[in-house]
Amino acid sequence: MTIIKVKSPFDGRLLQEIPLMDSEIVEEKMAKAYALFQDRSRWLKPYERIAILERTKKLMESRVEDLTKIAASEGGKPYQDSKVEVLRAINGVQLAIEYIGQIKGDQIPMGMTAASLNRLAFSMPEPIGVVLSISAFNHPLNLAVHQIIPAFAVGCPVIIKPASSTPMSAIELVKIMKEAGLPADWAEVVICNRENAELMVKDSRVNYFSFIGSAEVGWALRSKLAPGTHCAMEHGGSAPVIVEADTDIDEAISLLGKGAFYHAGQVCVSVQRVFVHDSIMDEFSKKLVVYAKSIKVGDPLDPFTEVGPMIDSWEQERVHTWVNEAVKEGAELLFGGRKCMATCYQPSILLNPSEDSKVSKLEVFGPVVCLYTYSKLQEAIDRSNSLDLAFQASIFTKNMDKALDAVSQLNASAVMVNDHTAFRVDWMPFGGRDASGIGVGGIPYSMKEMTRDKLMVIRSKSI
Amino acid sequence: MTIIKVKSPFDGRLLQEIPLMDSEIVEEKMAKAYALFQDRSRWLKPYERIAILERTKKLMESRVEDLTKIAASEGGKPYQDSKVEVLRAINGVQLAIEYIGQIKGDQIPMGMTAASLNRLAFSMPEPIGVVLSISAFNHPLNLAVHQIIPAFAVGCPVIIKPASSTPMSAIELVKIMKEAGLPADWAEVVICNRENAELMVKDSRVNYFSFIGSAEVGWALRSKLAPGTHCAMEHGGSAPVIVEADTDIDEAISLLGKGAFYHAGQVCVSVQRVFVHDSIMDEFSKKLVVYAKSIKVGDPLDPFTEVGPMIDSWEQERVHTWVNEAVKEGAELLFGGRKCMATCYQPSILLNPSEDSKVSKLEVFGPVVCLYTYSKLQEAIDRSNSLDLAFQASIFTKNMDKALDAVSQLNASAVMVNDHTAFRVDWMPFGGRDASGIGVGGIPYSMKEMTRDKLMVIRSKSI
Amino acid sequence: MTIIKVKSPFDGRLLQEIPLMDSEIVEEKMAKAYALFQDRSRWLKPYERIAILERTKKLMESRVEDLTKIAASEGGKPYQDSKVEVLRAINGVQLAIEYIGQIKGDQIPMGMTAASLNRLAFSMPEPIGVVLSISAFNHPLNLAVHQIIPAFAVGCPVIIKPASSTPMSAIELVKIMKEAGLPADWAEVVICNRENAELMVKDSRVNYFSFIGSAEVGWALRSKLAPGTHCAMEHGGSAPVIVEADTDIDEAISLLGKGAFYHAGQVCVSVQRVFVHDSIMDEFSKKLVVYAKSIKVGDPLDPFTEVGPMIDSWEQERVHTWVNEAVKEGAELLFGGRKCMATCYQPSILLNPSEDSKVSKLEVFGPVVCLYTYSKLQEAIDRSNSLDLAFQASIFTKNMDKALDAVSQLNASAVMVNDHTAFRVDWMPFGGRDASGIGVGGIPYSMKEMTRDKLMVIRSKSI
Amino acid sequence: MTIIKVKSPFDGRLLQEIPLMDSEIVEEKMAKAYALFQDRSRWLKPYERIAILERTKKLMESRVEDLTKIAASEGGKPYQDSKVEVLRAINGVQLAIEYIGQIKGDQIPMGMTAASLNRLAFSMPEPIGVVLSISAFNHPLNLAVHQIIPAFAVGCPVIIKPASSTPMSAIELVKIMKEAGLPADWAEVVICNRENAELMVKDSRVNYFSFIGSAEVGWALRSKLAPGTHCAMEHGGSAPVIVEADTDIDEAISLLGKGAFYHAGQVCVSVQRVFVHDSIMDEFSKKLVVYAKSIKVGDPLDPFTEVGPMIDSWEQERVHTWVNEAVKEGAELLFGGRKCMATCYQPSILLNPSEDSKVSKLEVFGPVVCLYTYSKLQEAIDRSNSLDLAFQASIFTKNMDKALDAVSQLNASAVMVNDHTAFRVDWMPFGGRDASGIGVGGIPYSMKEMTRDKLMVIRSKSI
Repeated sequence: MTIIKVKSPFDGRLLQEIPLMDSEIVEEKMAKAYALFQDRSRWLKPYERIAILERTKKLMESRVEDLTKIAASEGGKPYQDSKVEVLRAINGVQLAIEYIGQIKGDQIPMGMTAASLNRLAFSMPEPIGVVLSISAFNHPLNLAVHQIIPAFAVGCPVIIKPASSTPMSAIELVKIMKEAGLPADWAEVVICNRENAELMVKDSRVNYFSFIGSAEVGWALRSKLAPGTHCAMEHGGSAPVIVEADTDIDEAISLLGKGAFYHAGQVCVSVQRVFVHDSIMDEFSKKLVVYAKSIKVGDPLDPFTEVGPMIDSWEQERVHTWVNEAVKEGAELLFGGRKCMATCYQPSILLNPSEDSKVSKLEVFGPVVCLYTYSKLQEAIDRSNSLDLAFQASIFTKNMDKALDAVSQLNASAVMVNDHTAFRVDWMPFGGRDASGIGVGGIPYSMKEMTRDKLMVIRSKSI
Repeated sequence: MTIIKVKSPFDGRLLQEIPLMDSEIVEEKMAKAYALFQDRSRWLKPYERIAILERTKKLMESRVEDLTKIAASEGGKPYQDSKVEVLRAINGVQLAIEYIGQIKGDQIPMGMTAASLNRLAFSMPEPIGVVLSISAFNHPLNLAVHQIIPAFAVGCPVIIKPASSTPMSAIELVKIMKEAGLPADWAEVVICNRENAELMVKDSRVNYFSFIGSAEVGWALRSKLAPGTHCAMEHGGSAPVIVEADTDIDEAISLLGKGAFYHAGQVCVSVQRVFVHDSIMDEFSKKLVVYAKSIKVGDPLDPFTEVGPMIDSWEQERVHTWVNEAVKEGAELLFGGRKCMATCYQPSILLNPSEDSKVSKLEVFGPVVCLYTYSKLQEAIDRSNSLDLAFQASIFTKNMDKALDAVSQLNASAVMVNDHTAFRVDWMPFGGRDASGIGVGGIPYSMKEMTRDKLMVIRSKSI
Repeated sequence: MTIIKVKSPFDGRLLQEIPLMDSEIVEEKMAKAYALFQDRSRWLKPYERIAILERTKKLMESRVEDLTKIAASEGGKPYQDSKVEVLRAINGVQLAIEYIGQIKGDQIPMGMTAASLNRLAFSMPEPIGVVLSISAFNHPLNLAVHQIIPAFAVGCPVIIKPASSTPMSAIELVKIMKEAGLPADWAEVVICNRENAELMVKDSRVNYFSFIGSAEVGWALRSKLAPGTHCAMEHGGSAPVIVEADTDIDEAISLLGKGAFYHAGQVCVSVQRVFVHDSIMDEFSKKLVVYAKSIKVGDPLDPFTEVGPMIDSWEQERVHTWVNEAVKEGAELLFGGRKCMATCYQPSILLNPSEDSKVSKLEVFGPVVCLYTYSKLQEAIDRSNSLDLAFQASIFTKNMDKALDAVSQLNASAVMVNDHTAFRVDWMPFGGRDASGIGVGGIPYSMKEMTRDKLMVIRSKSI
Repeated sequence: MTIIKVKSPFDGRLLQEIPLMDSEIVEEKMAKAYALFQDRSRWLKPYERIAILERTKKLMESRVEDLTKIAASEGGKPYQDSKVEVLRAINGVQLAIEYIGQIKGDQIPMGMTAASLNRLAFSMPEPIGVVLSISAFNHPLNLAVHQIIPAFAVGCPVIIKPASSTPMSAIELVKIMKEAGLPADWAEVVICNRENAELMVKDSRVNYFSFIGSAEVGWALRSKLAPGTHCAMEHGGSAPVIVEADTDIDEAISLLGKGAFYHAGQVCVSVQRVFVHDSIMDEFSKKLVVYAKSIKVGDPLDPFTEVGPMIDSWEQERVHTWVNEAVKEGAELLFGGRKCMATCYQPSILLNPSEDSKVSKLEVFGPVVCLYTYSKLQEAIDRSNSLDLAFQASIFTKNMDKALDAVSQLNASAVMVNDHTAFRVDWMPFGGRDASGIGVGGIPYSMKEMTRDKLMVIRSKSI
């Protein structure tokens, strides 16, 4: 089989047929990327990279509608949210332009010992080398931006393998970059099978491997990296939220409802486990049900849709099974629990599932939120910290001491206070810790990780 | 076999017998370290860590002579150089004290988009978790300092497995720390066999793995890390030096001679491959032979010894074989090439060995320096960059353009100008790139790597 | 008159007679300091400065008792508080040692425009030049440390003129530095009259002028600086505190009582104006009276004394007059309002003085705290911000939104949440804004200000 | 007299008549700016400021030709150089946009002493307040950008008084900003006489005073600032250049010729004093004469003109007088020394003027370059450092030790290696030291200076 059929996850409509690249083509792309990095005469100066990125940004700005439809069609994220994704992607290019001037070294002071006199030392960042990116389906354009643009911005050739289900946005992005003047070999999309992808991952010509996807696949790939290859792994989470009794419940509901059901929960920092103080659980859960009921589920291309399909029916089935299991294991289903249309799943709310149910222990990656009753803050913190997944977390409270207590103790890369866990801007550090990932994403952070410092130490009697 | 016999590498004298820990003890130490990290009530405040480090430093200052003899006896580095190691180790503790106040977060500005209004965001570093260190023999005390002290300084429990040949210095260091008030479980030495070491490396309770040793072992261990474990690998190099025709030869000889033969070349940034401009090779090589002849080889405890033994006779034999092979393959032996005393090896100089000889391709890690003739700077740079090892490099020239050209092009983590490649101070970034390593060492850099940032994002209408 | 008689502010006992330097001596000191700065061959390397500071610290540690008594005797701050001052002064020397390694430049990236290609640019800090310090009486040793040690630490010669009432501590500090190996001309104490001090202030050989004292004198001196002289002025404040209704009153009392009456209020960030929510004013004020009553006023050398004398009887009289005026103008005197012993003043509490009374508009610099009733937070903030003085401020509340609202809106260089306004550690930035001062103090910040960057831009085709 | 007649400095043609504002209008503008700063409800969020700056930039990009002609007409800088100025001004707006996201605070770590436990401290930058800018004639648009845009970018209201001879560019810039959506009172141009300007300088409502102009005026104004007003003064220099014997003379001539005669030398970092090694002075001076002869002097609107007029005939006369004096005092006039056309002055080269001649001691600010013979590098350095002016300097040499020696020793805010002294990019730090100025310019540095940090210290048991 040498063709990928890209289909709409909502209605199965064929969107595009894309040829699978065989190992020879993949090898050729890798060889060219490496040759480019080895040949400094072909490197682009900062101002040349800036010019290409400026034109890329302008082209994207002129095609927001197209990019939105491509992303929504292949990925199933509703039109309005896909449009936000496109605008964020454009802002991501702008951020990369802005941070090129922030890629800079430091002086390393000398002379604090007699042995280090007469030296002048400075670090100078260099591009790290060839970047290999493997991407996920849930933000087909913005993830591509995050995994391609920082590499190019700091002067690294980059090869990206998008998710097989959503390759069109990445292909479109690289096409736009080339239209904007990108010379050959700086950014290439590879559409290939798993074996060929793995060959690239193991390749010693890769100096930085960026992976967004499942923890299982990611950590297995890390163990196959060649000596010296750096990596950033961005996996999923099972985001905990603590809602204290002094919370403004209406405000919390509107934030947490969005954070739980946005893109049918197919987001690594989606609100999943909500610990609600027992004194307010009744009110909280009722209002959340009202919120969930009001959500419009359906065709992602309909501008009024709020929740679209799961990425495929297998995922829909998996989530349904997990919900049913949870109910069998003691959870109360407050709302939802039904498949709808071809591949959609009704926003669902579970009350007090068992700690041993999959929905409590694993990443659901579906439109399912679990509510857990607690009485003491420390208990909620401990339960939040009970998994080996650790990404973003949040607490709702008006009380400063409680907020800081949760911020200190929650095992998370980011703790939001009075906000949902899926808050993100593209210039902030982003990435899981422990089993949820390694390395730091966000445009400026990726740019930093995709450089390496060279130290220059000049020995001179004049110093 | 449950005992390690630590012997002098110079004369085989038994220095100490140390019991090997079995898997149960190793597991217990790991469990205790992890339990400590999980229990915030046992964490030490910065001022408490500072106080313990201050006392550690004072105790070390009062025992310079003892520490020097322990290090020189077990590791074979000559007395004078071992003393310098001890003084650097003490300075390393001081550096850790100083940098505790530099462990700090940043504001992440918000409001650059409408969606990020009403947020105040700051990052805050936290200790990363349990640190596991596996160390090398060549600087038995200072490496222990680099792999234990930064961890403790930032609040991480640390387990260290020193080299089997040189465990005494690490054991002594931890003993001193405990004498200085270190509570239980913060720093533990594990003396164990390879299987048990590997169990620790794979353990998901380890959050940071620091390895100093051979590339082969190191990269194999990296592939076995548990999900989420960070690592720093410091392997060897094959340090290239370029000597341009305008160099002050006498000055270069005194620097490069030291850099090549210091500790019998058993240093990861030892001067190994020296590219000398053909117009000065004759003078340069003759003067280097004179230098090598003058070196006093022998007993590391003799204060006049300049080069001591290899770490064991197997290593002595390996180096001898490589030198002989190189000569067979075309190199001219200008000096040395002989084993002497039990485990010493005469400082040796090879002229123009084949690019295919082991001494040209691999890390020699012995008192052998290779001289290569070149005529154009670009050629010397290209040959310097021909290996997959990449650590420190250097160029000798008075000319600014040539110096900057080499600094730019040499594939190295540090390029020295008019200095040997083994220059290091303990506050500078240090570590190989490509096959030579990953992560950045140096006291402040290790401290940074042994923390992880938590982002706090407060949402408030007051902002 | 050519002698200063230093007397105990508590009992008038003569402590020391110090000759006044005439204009010739002052000129000679200035000339020597400038000559030293001009002669790079006499500059001390960082490690030499570190060694002198290390020995200074050790000598100070061995003389804590002496230094405490000198400071307490001449300045009148109680023994226990003076001892804390001495320990902080020692820590200040330690901080300077630690930050020497933090004085470093940055790369300025080039190539973001075509016109800036082929350049490599780095900034490098240099000592700014001769530092002139004029100091205040209230922390005779620690202010001297703040105004001498950072200058020397970064390599600037420094001349200090201590307060005429408390010169002994500064003289002792410089004596210790010389004992610790300080070469001639690096740090000199000048005891002179106002005219000669002004000559120094105007002198173009001074590159940095550090002034701690009254705003009136300070700003007048600033206007007389020579072209190019930098300055830091640290004047007084009139610190506002807001106490919201949800505050833990007992905790607030113990913090604010200390912050108001510490060193008889003779501190630039002393708690002066406390805005208390009307719902808790009754309880708050009663408890504060209880606190004030319990304070032991008297001889600073008595280890049980909590509040000592005013610096002189003129100050005592001034404060008394202000309190009486406030009462006449409508304030209720809840406690105190009496002179006691020779130069002491009873801790005093005024309720709701007029906004026009001096105690509401000017810096009291005495043991007097004013309580003001308010009902809405915004009102309290506006009243806090009504003066042109702006130094440290604070709010007490458990509520995060209110705390952040006050932090945002209060015109202050620092806002404490749930703490008194006099909180300070010597590594934090410290200094008033608006009429309260200019420049940033704190050991590392002063060190930064006492350097100036030199930019090096290398143009080379190799870059 | 209530009208300023803006005339072409080249031919006296009337360009525009602009009414002088009287003291009432000036006071009204100041009052409005201050009221705006006091009223947080009118403050613009970062994204709103970014949007206005983006539109400003686009409008400027669409009017490059107009802006070039305005600047060239009123200021006399030749068309091509004025166009470069306009493009740099546009880039300056872009830089301000980029650096808004870099305005951020830091964590101040706590707990290094027991007394600072339980605190969390962060600094947060705030706009400093009302900015007053007084500008110079030589870059009428780009200086306005540097003195207006950073202020607005960080949220400060700004009032600018442009040079009376060149007000049109600043007026045009503010007009464009308003067209781009700038609300009232954020940026206002004031055209007023000296008395009214001085009233503004003294006004306590000004928190930051930015002055570009003559040292004499600048330092006098500094002495009149109100308490608490910060300032940046950018005055002139007398830039020294050292040309060592190993220099590539042709390359040096093309750089130094441009640096000396660009804008008729009316630039604060114009090449003025060139110390040439005696072994190459003959060749160097002859080639520089050839260069000077080739320069096309004349009408600034002619696209082939390289050097335009002096700003007025008084300046032309002053420079002519200085040159004649220098010749009388011993200098050899190698070329030039003549007035030409109405207000132009022929590029002029003086050999070995007396150290006491005005051209050696003061800023010439005209198209005159002085060559001085020297034999030892140290002598050239000492003579370079002999004035109290200190701005940018440079050395030409291929030798690294000599280059670093000059970099270390030259008293300058920037030392160029193998480049002329007038090198500048708008993101680098820029500003004189000693009598040449105070404060640091450059878009990001001005933005930093136009903020002030507020420290937030939260005391909580949860920390």
